Amino acid sequence: MLNPEGKPESAAETAAPAKKHGSDLEIARAAHLRPIRDVAARLDVPEEALYPFGHHIGKIEDWYLQQIEDRPDGKLILVTAITPTPAGEGKTTMTIGLGDGLNRIGARTAMCIREPSLGPCFGMKGGAAGGGYAQVVPMETINLHFTGDFHAITAAHNLLAAMLDNHMHWGNAQDIDPRRVAWRRVLDMNDRALRRMVIGLGGPTEGVPREDGFDITVASEVMAIFCLAKNFDDLHERLGAMVIGYRRDKSPVYARDIEAPGAMSVLLQQAFNPNLVQTLENNPAFVHGGPFANIAHGCNTVRATRAALKLSDYVVTEAGFGADLGAEKFFDIKCRKAGLNPSAAVVVATVRALKMHGGVDKADLGKPNVEAVRAGAVNLGRHIENLRKFGVPLVVGINRFGTDTEEELQAVVDYCAAQGVEAYVCTHWADGSAGSEAIAARVRELADGETTSRFAPLYSEELSVEDKIRKIASELYRAGDVVLSDAARAEIRRLTKLGYGNLPVCMAKTQYSFSSDPALRGAPEGHTLEVREVRLSAGAGFIVVVCGSIMTMPGLPKVPAANAMYVNENGQIENLS
Amino acid sequence: MLNPEGKPESAAETAAPAKKHGSDLEIARAAHLRPIRDVAARLDVPEEALYPFGHHIGKIEDWYLQQIEDRPDGKLILVTAITPTPAGEGKTTMTIGLGDGLNRIGARTAMCIREPSLGPCFGMKGGAAGGGYAQVVPMETINLHFTGDFHAITAAHNLLAAMLDNHMHWGNAQDIDPRRVAWRRVLDMNDRALRRMVIGLGGPTEGVPREDGFDITVASEVMAIFCLAKNFDDLHERLGAMVIGYRRDKSPVYARDIEAPGAMSVLLQQAFNPNLVQTLENNPAFVHGGPFANIAHGCNTVRATRAALKLSDYVVTEAGFGADLGAEKFFDIKCRKAGLNPSAAVVVATVRALKMHGGVDKADLGKPNVEAVRAGAVNLGRHIENLRKFGVPLVVGINRFGTDTEEELQAVVDYCAAQGVEAYVCTHWADGSAGSEAIAARVRELADGETTSRFAPLYSEELSVEDKIRKIASELYRAGDVVLSDAARAEIRRLTKLGYGNLPVCMAKTQYSFSSDPALRGAPEGHTLEVREVRLSAGAGFIVVVCGSIMTMPGLPKVPAANAMYVNENGQIENLS
Repeated sequence: MLNPEGKPESAAETAAPAKKHGSDLEIARAAHLRPIRDVAARLDVPEEALYPFGHHIGKIEDWYLQQIEDRPDGKLILVTAITPTPAGEGKTTMTIGLGDGLNRIGARTAMCIREPSLGPCFGMKGGAAGGGYAQVVPMETINLHFTGDFHAITAAHNLLAAMLDNHMHWGNAQDIDPRRVAWRRVLDMNDRALRRMVIGLGGPTEGVPREDGFDITVASEVMAIFCLAKNFDDLHERLGAMVIGYRRDKSPVYARDIEAPGAMSVLLQQAFNPNLVQTLENNPAFVHGGPFANIAHGCNTVRATRAALKLSDYVVTEAGFGADLGAEKFFDIKCRKAGLNPSAAVVVATVRALKMHGGVDKADLGKPNVEAVRAGAVNLGRHIENLRKFGVPLVVGINRFGTDTEEELQAVVDYCAAQGVEAYVCTHWADGSAGSEAIAARVRELADGETTSRFAPLYSEELSVEDKIRKIASELYRAGDVVLSDAARAEIRRLTKLGYGNLPVCMAKTQYSFSSDPALRGAPEGHTLEVREVRLSAGAGFIVVVCGSIMTMPGLPKVPAANAMYVNENGQIENLS
Repeated sequence: MLNPEGKPESAAETAAPAKKHGSDLEIARAAHLRPIRDVAARLDVPEEALYPFGHHIGKIEDWYLQQIEDRPDGKLILVTAITPTPAGEGKTTMTIGLGDGLNRIGARTAMCIREPSLGPCFGMKGGAAGGGYAQVVPMETINLHFTGDFHAITAAHNLLAAMLDNHMHWGNAQDIDPRRVAWRRVLDMNDRALRRMVIGLGGPTEGVPREDGFDITVASEVMAIFCLAKNFDDLHERLGAMVIGYRRDKSPVYARDIEAPGAMSVLLQQAFNPNLVQTLENNPAFVHGGPFANIAHGCNTVRATRAALKLSDYVVTEAGFGADLGAEKFFDIKCRKAGLNPSAAVVVATVRALKMHGGVDKADLGKPNVEAVRAGAVNLGRHIENLRKFGVPLVVGINRFGTDTEEELQAVVDYCAAQGVEAYVCTHWADGSAGSEAIAARVRELADGETTSRFAPLYSEELSVEDKIRKIASELYRAGDVVLSDAARAEIRRLTKLGYGNLPVCMAKTQYSFSSDPALRGAPEGHTLEVREVRLSAGAGFIVVVCGSIMTMPGLPKVPAANAMYVNENGQIENLS
């Protein structure tokens, strides 16, 4: 399992010793899929509102989404996690397992997750469709081109880039400064050689020479907009509002200034409709959009979440990275901007990851070490404290591994109880919904307790950009100080002057620590958060705050997963997992 | 209408005065489409062999293609054309109109055409799905992402590029010379600024600096292979055989040397199945693949053509550019290599284009000028002579325009009669199949006349590369001489030494003249063909012979068609045509 960032998000499939039926791919292939129209029918979506891609994938048509717009919302449940380690936590697996568990106990539930990115799929081994007996299917299609959404986003993004360079080539009426172009290109590929380049070489017929580079598609602002836009008009408006560069007088040039948003919307029209698939247990799952969790907010589309809320009583969704990043952005950006009101949250933890937070090396994770579990639990404790600040009731879900001892598991449960939180040992990876029934029952109770959720974002948008950063740093990261680089400070001044000071901030920080030092596990405090840079995403509607270095174009490893992939003599894909 | 090269291929829609129901898009939208399963059923393709994309597009599953492999073939009919001019000829429109005409007279017929490319669609105004009452539908989907085939080809191509740069980055075990990389990247976009670039900048963690560039996807060798491969094994084998660069000792490095073909095949698996759509008259049309007609052979996939031949009694297909390029490559590359046996050919001409060949300026095309028509008919005559050398019986189809006079049309018919060829005035653009009934009846007769077609390629593969070039130049182009640059001569020697001397040649010459001077209209002879360069496409299985300059990455015009496109308040796409 890989998240769009190419980092292991769950090691459950590789670490768990009790593989009953082989690889994720083998389990997925053995699944009994229902026609997607039957899955849609369980949500009362009529067949004519479904645009099929094969027999097991469908997009919900826009006219139908408009028709159900005024229905009341179901309950929204967020799955988030402790600070990730190489040992893994398994957010996607928990999201699917919990959704299957809720359906098992009679709660009409849909899941909402992100679409996998091709890049990491061919880089590190693995896709992003869950694992074990908690997967969405058809796994190969979802992990490969799926319904072409990312290709459409890539095309829309690059059309804007081509129109921009073309504009400069043909007279540059907008007077765009080739040194201040703020729009790179994208590919859904891990390709480090494209990070920095010089384009437009070859003389006056070949464009204007300038520095450029490619990011991976999930890092595109078009992707962020795609995931935050409420409807088609909103999408079009936001595309037009993107700042793509600056004139020689330093005034911003917007995408609308070069007449690009219409054609970009044309390219995105079909992609913008949410994709419906099913879990191994034939429950409905929306898989739509997949923005980076660093320079963007890391959640599936608002459109899918809203559709799911109209069509089912409970919706389980996930946010990227640990709760300090993913849940914060889910609440402060996605929920605030889309008017969503989350009813409950699940924090995913594993004994193995807590051991790593407690100081154990990866090689020793298989050995029982209850003391390390207790020591590492402070990481979980910190996330619990943080999440309470958003006013959403929560439980802890422990993804059980075969090497976990009862004593270790009990230590986590006890730790949580001491914090006033219930923790549930979950085995959906090995057992499907039978392994998540208990947590599902409790989550339903929490979500149904109308009075317990008093969701509110952490900060007011009225705060200054710097104060927003300081509030997140002190209250969630427990930093002792925030230091902004001169460049960051100057850019904040500039953006505030341009009228962007009221946007929420999108923190881009290492996911491996509460601090900006990835080596600091557990629950560090008093550290200094260094803000290197800020970047405007005017169309997405946030200011990216870059703490440390962030990677927007991954590279392939020395031996890419691609090397081992092939189509076998039966037409089946091998070594995609 | 634009062909993948972005050049006007038919001006019928813009030039014809008698637009009965508005634009192509309006006509297409008003069409009564049948469910694609019903269209498939007319070919006796069972519903389970159809992978639907929405309700009006389907891919034919591979298992079904294997099942029908041993059936006898229907008759294959090629639509080709005179030398193109800005006045247009309308090959795609004729292909669809003739296919509809054949169905109208009771001949069970399928059509095979190329998929449109996104690049030109957003550049010059127009897609490539036919025009007027001879279109394939759903037009917007076909002209946009369709079934994602081009995106899959783009991804497979660029994965290989990423793996190649990654290989050089991580130790370069194959000792690939960064100065001799022979694999560029692609995007389905008109983007001149990407033609020449330097990548891998930024220091030792960012890849190996080298010159690179992007071509448009239709120019990818993966596209050429996709269109020539007979089955999945052949596809995989050809991908592996592509030369992607050279070692410091100048020996070739193949795609298989860096273990790329398996993953590329995985990316292409679904795309490789042929797409079935319908014409406005609900007749079956395969739209699959779309290689450049200059550095590649310019025909739809062998796989679609073979499927159509198994499933119907007649198959009408087209080849890019004029007959000197398109038909020659169709016969000498596609038919030879795929074992296809064409039964008849139609040469498309228009009065307007013949007038241009007769010396009339574009501005004066609306004025009657029978003398100019007669003078320009030598271009048509030359193509007729040429086509006879392949042993395939032929007729001429005249795409009628509103400005054509009876006298002008008769002049073309009379000219053809003098050459011993029947010519038919066709009005399928305005009238649908009613306007192509006469030519359809004659084409059926020709195709049914078993003894009349004695198809043979023009040259033997055993000839030397230079002799193949000379044979085409003297017999088809009527060049007086062929002059090879030193570089071309040296490369031919090198490729011959490497064992590629027996490959057919793929001529890359201007489509606007029999000569290599685009300004030489009519039927020039005695000119000198200058061969600047030759390029190996080892996987596709041909040697590209470059005469003059060829463009593999188009640019956008000053005012791209994209500027005017948008999605209207009813969710309909505007200004895509």
